[in-house]
Amino acid sequence: MQRLLIDMDDVMADTSLKIITMVNDTFGTDYTKEMLTSDPKIKEEYQEKYLTQRHRLWDKGFFRDIPLMPDAQEVIGELYKKYEIFIVSAATEFPNSMAEKLEWLEDYFPYIGWSHTVFCGHKWMIKADYIIDDHEKNLINFTGKGLLFDAPHNQHIVDFQRVNSWKHIETILL
Amino acid sequence: MQRLLIDMDDVMADTSLKIITMVNDTFGTDYTKEMLTSDPKIKEEYQEKYLTQRHRLWDKGFFRDIPLMPDAQEVIGELYKKYEIFIVSAATEFPNSMAEKLEWLEDYFPYIGWSHTVFCGHKWMIKADYIIDDHEKNLINFTGKGLLFDAPHNQHIVDFQRVNSWKHIETILL
Repeated sequence: MQRLLIDMDDVMADTSLKIITMVNDTFGTDYTKEMLTSDPKIKEEYQEKYLTQRHRLWDKGFFRDIPLMPDAQEVIGELYKKYEIFIVSAATEFPNSMAEKLEWLEDYFPYIGWSHTVFCGHKWMIKADYIIDDHEKNLINFTGKGLLFDAPHNQHIVDFQRVNSWKHIETILL
Repeated sequence: MQRLLIDMDDVMADTSLKIITMVNDTFGTDYTKEMLTSDPKIKEEYQEKYLTQRHRLWDKGFFRDIPLMPDAQEVIGELYKKYEIFIVSAATEFPNSMAEKLEWLEDYFPYIGWSHTVFCGHKWMIKADYIIDDHEKNLINFTGKGLLFDAPHNQHIVDFQRVNSWKHIETILL
């Protein structure tokens, strides 16, 4: 069975959507993911506001109620029949997040369980056939094939196969 | 630089000592590690008592004040100069433990940091040259060389090189 690593934030969970909503609620703005992807000037404005709020990622509860990425539940359910799946989240920077992420996974992906979950800083020492991740740093030294999950912050990356959605992943891995 | 994985419980941290003390405090007994290692009948008696208390491993705070394993600080400090070290703890079964383990590491091994820490269920997918661990299950499918750290619960294992202390590890890896 081939091994597949799946990142949580901005891959299984729509963390950018939660953060954009937090910025909008704080500043009375109406940013959307599409605006940040298409307009560099708007993205820069947004980024400045976001950085003043970034400390809230360390707040208790922040990672407990992130919305699901569209179609993640359905497609991961199918992938689970064909791959040895490990959820691999660079979460040790956020000590509170790990218990919350385990509860979140239990809500939406109860069949995976704590035994196939990894919370770490780096990912380069984990061996697998595939990784789905939104950060270039997690793909660069990966020994298998990396799939870059499209996100506002990775539009400039061209070195990896980009996937735009879970439906897109379905066509590649299933 | 060769990569070295180091387990926490019963390798860096003397978790068995904390658990034996907890059992002794609860039942008014006077078990020691040496008694559990040398006498199977006493070990069985102890095990029965321990199982009634095992739920306390999930209590908030349990992993925050585990005593250091003798010489771990000194020898790991030396190993750090020669190896790429990752602390790898099978901790996802204990959701509260991860924040506590990060704080514990920050107290005694502040130079390692969250970026070189891994909390997981299984360890077989992590690639490294060496692992120091007290559980056979973490050595069996490991692709590098496994060193079995001596503990009361692993006396029956003969398939791996046993290390009795951090001073012993020093003679092998340094």
